[in-house]
Amino acid sequence: MVKVVAMYGHPEDKQAFDAHYFDKHIPLTEKIPGLKEVKVSKYDKDPMGNPSRYYIICEMYYDNMDELKSGLSSDEGRASAKDAMSLSGKSVTFMVGEDADG
Amino acid sequence: MVKVVAMYGHPEDKQAFDAHYFDKHIPLTEKIPGLKEVKVSKYDKDPMGNPSRYYIICEMYYDNMDELKSGLSSDEGRASAKDAMSLSGKSVTFMVGEDADG
Repeated sequence: MVKVVAMYGHPEDKQAFDAHYFDKHIPLTEKIPGLKEVKVSKYDKDPMGNPSRYYIICEMYYDNMDELKSGLSSDEGRASAKDAMSLSGKSVTFMVGEDADG
Repeated sequence: MVKVVAMYGHPEDKQAFDAHYFDKHIPLTEKIPGLKEVKVSKYDKDPMGNPSRYYIICEMYYDNMDELKSGLSSDEGRASAKDAMSLSGKSVTFMVGEDADG
């Protein structure tokens, strides 16, 4: 399994962000062909109590790199990416990776 | 379940980093009382082929926030944190969060 990770900075309006994110963005994302699993985690603070670097991290799993690339370049993948940018402007960071053994 | 996430920037010497990280740091971390699960993922590129923002993300799960705080402030937690800093200096970012529903 490989994954695309999207990391979102803290939005100014968390309630509006969450409504858009969970009610529109995630359903849009789940339409991407080849996407096997979506995991969302939320962050508020760092261990010292300061604001966390990111607000939401979303992990999107695919069987392999070919499936991942096909998914991202599909119409549904482009629609999801466009919506992610509209959600957060420049404050979303994407990475491609995989879970390590063990 | 709640988690501490550690995000490491790309090291100059990945082979040396990996040896330290997987052979010393993870075993040290796994001694932390209350720690239930450790998940490590590795990143190289972003979807455009540029270098990824982070190299490794480690998720450390605890049953609840009290267990997490106790774990981090334990001797083993402090030893793990000290080792993480020695691994990467200022290029490690910690956050506290939890998996969202669904």
